[in-house]
Amino acid sequence: MNLSEMSREQLVSFKNETEALYNDFKAQGLCLNMSRGNPCKEQLDLSLDMLNVFSDGGFMSECGTDVRNYGVLDGIPEAKKFFSEMIGVSEDEIIIFGNSSLNAMFFCVQLAYNKGVLGSKPWAQYDKVKFLCPVPGYDRHFKVTEFFGIEMINIPMTSTGPDMDMIEKLTAEDDSIKGIWCVPQYSNPDGICYSDDTVKRFANLKPAAKDFRIFWDNAYCIHHLTDDPKPILNLLAEAKKAGNEDIVYKFGSTSKVTFPGAGVAVMGASKNNIEAIKKALGISIIGYDKMNQLRHVKFFGTFANMCEHMKKHRDIIAPKFRLVCDKLDQEIAPLGIGSWTDPKGGYFVSFNAMNGCAKRIVQLCQEAGVTLTGAGATFPYGKDPDDKNIRLAPTYPPIEDLAKAMELFTICVKLASAEKLLSE
Amino acid sequence: MNLSEMSREQLVSFKNETEALYNDFKAQGLCLNMSRGNPCKEQLDLSLDMLNVFSDGGFMSECGTDVRNYGVLDGIPEAKKFFSEMIGVSEDEIIIFGNSSLNAMFFCVQLAYNKGVLGSKPWAQYDKVKFLCPVPGYDRHFKVTEFFGIEMINIPMTSTGPDMDMIEKLTAEDDSIKGIWCVPQYSNPDGICYSDDTVKRFANLKPAAKDFRIFWDNAYCIHHLTDDPKPILNLLAEAKKAGNEDIVYKFGSTSKVTFPGAGVAVMGASKNNIEAIKKALGISIIGYDKMNQLRHVKFFGTFANMCEHMKKHRDIIAPKFRLVCDKLDQEIAPLGIGSWTDPKGGYFVSFNAMNGCAKRIVQLCQEAGVTLTGAGATFPYGKDPDDKNIRLAPTYPPIEDLAKAMELFTICVKLASAEKLLSE
Repeated sequence: MNLSEMSREQLVSFKNETEALYNDFKAQGLCLNMSRGNPCKEQLDLSLDMLNVFSDGGFMSECGTDVRNYGVLDGIPEAKKFFSEMIGVSEDEIIIFGNSSLNAMFFCVQLAYNKGVLGSKPWAQYDKVKFLCPVPGYDRHFKVTEFFGIEMINIPMTSTGPDMDMIEKLTAEDDSIKGIWCVPQYSNPDGICYSDDTVKRFANLKPAAKDFRIFWDNAYCIHHLTDDPKPILNLLAEAKKAGNEDIVYKFGSTSKVTFPGAGVAVMGASKNNIEAIKKALGISIIGYDKMNQLRHVKFFGTFANMCEHMKKHRDIIAPKFRLVCDKLDQEIAPLGIGSWTDPKGGYFVSFNAMNGCAKRIVQLCQEAGVTLTGAGATFPYGKDPDDKNIRLAPTYPPIEDLAKAMELFTICVKLASAEKLLSE
Repeated sequence: MNLSEMSREQLVSFKNETEALYNDFKAQGLCLNMSRGNPCKEQLDLSLDMLNVFSDGGFMSECGTDVRNYGVLDGIPEAKKFFSEMIGVSEDEIIIFGNSSLNAMFFCVQLAYNKGVLGSKPWAQYDKVKFLCPVPGYDRHFKVTEFFGIEMINIPMTSTGPDMDMIEKLTAEDDSIKGIWCVPQYSNPDGICYSDDTVKRFANLKPAAKDFRIFWDNAYCIHHLTDDPKPILNLLAEAKKAGNEDIVYKFGSTSKVTFPGAGVAVMGASKNNIEAIKKALGISIIGYDKMNQLRHVKFFGTFANMCEHMKKHRDIIAPKFRLVCDKLDQEIAPLGIGSWTDPKGGYFVSFNAMNGCAKRIVQLCQEAGVTLTGAGATFPYGKDPDDKNIRLAPTYPPIEDLAKAMELFTICVKLASAEKLLSE
């Protein structure tokens, strides 16, 4: 029975029953964390052999540099070759960064802010600079733009990507809009894949601001959960067709391929953009960890092998996603008190509670020992206007723990919903 | 015979003889690089066992985090403990960065520029911000401040460190002076160790600008070339005594201890400073490579072991420094056309030619196949007012090559000096 159709009496009794279950849980003293998209131990173990690749004593890069020594600011050529395939650029359109694509994005925003973009006025010199933020989105993106005082504008997500009508209109009208954060494949947290039409419209965008950049964080480009993944269209290639190739900065990493703490991050963009960024990057660092770059290249050998490797990840985590969705189907669907995604890839299930319930649900879970991503985190400034979105990260806990956590979660959703309906 | 005492006739004949030797060299088609302070292959091999430390499968940090996974922004506790001894701070006064101390310094300048220092006005909001630059100094320091449009003021070096009278006077008078670049031990390139008195005067500095910071790049703190090294006084400890503990940012790294491309960089400062920097740092990155942090801790075990390890470096490079100085003693000293340092540590021999000769010497070497650090590089904006300083980096080439390069170098010094004297 749909919770909203219950009589007040039924609702009170439902709430009391749920509260009893909740209190039982609380008494168990759980301590589980589903707050971040961390791979689990079994996933980390998949890449252990990467640590042995130097047993052959081969430290020389193709370019004649010993990877142990200084130098090679933008990455060794074999890493450029290897990763260019992953992010869909050519070998002269890529920079190999350190272990963090977030750090690469921060650098690019910092650079635009302090120095401008390809000769434009530094963003810091404008009274106001704005970014478009498809919501719900990735909290760490929003923190970067917030740090630089950039005003963020929420853009609703649709099943094919962000609302392109709104994006086209706003960017055409307002030259203080300088960029947009996108996770085009398996968006964080909704798991939405941008349609070909969406990508083409991005490629053909004609913003009033010439220094507008699409921050295309393709974090989950090979992180599929199904047999028949459909990679999204190549934005840089499409932008070239439109004579618009400078508009996009692509990012990617192996954080969820090898080791989150010790992966390799990369950036792809037009040669113009890459040259300008390299010039500034060389002020900030002599070179990133080339040993780790070569470690990755030696371990995988080919991009095809890396894609095969991702299937092993899928084998480990797909059952966890299944469990989350099954539990929600079973416990929440009949009550009509929430909706959620059943993603075909990526790292999250995005749950939408009844309006005004997300904070309460997260709080209830927390008080019973299960930490979720903070309610609101998926919105700029941490403010979910409907207080409804919760990002569930199923990969890290062992599946028995995840089952427990989801049981608690569904109880908390029920309890918060009943409280809400009773208060109306 | 001193070159300046030669008759014009003697000088012409000296020049002709030297030119003939130079042309012989040119015909050899050398290709050697002495431009940067890179360790040589034998030095890199000293740390090879560091790559095997995970064969025990031990990936857990003391703090309960798997170092392969995300998290721990400021470094694992065992790395903090280990490196705090190296840079002379306590475990809550340190941040473990990635593979580059330059990158840590860039971050700190960027942060002060965009956000201010401990609540002060961002440096970007001043009409003018200045930095003091002891000269000759490290070109990459100067590039960072130049990048942010910070005006650089040359401060002469003395045998006990930079001219402290001048520093005290300028910082007291001018509140637009916001910082100073220092390499206190075996300064780059002069190899000067700041005296206790110099360090104490830094610790007691009372700059007009409250957001003035000493960027204390102790890059060579354990990089001794003698049996009886004298570590410099601990600036943070001295600054605490003076109630001045927020004035210093210390930096260090293992770039020339383990692998330049894959070492660990650290920063030490007062708790106030560390907290503020951590807060901003967390916007730019989730965490640095903790596997590499643990690799270092496991490999060395104790700070004492790391110091022992440095003796192996010394065994490899001390003969190269000897060769450079011997060659200069032998070929240049009798002619009175240059002076140079005989450093007790660090990575460079600093050579001062006759005024107006450095560029020509570097050019002559280059044309004969030996690349030196660009003349002027050791000064802000690449401008050596006397055009005399050349930084020699003896560590990288095999000793036979170094001997060749130094033979050429002395010939080029002679030739450029003779040219100069003849043109006067």
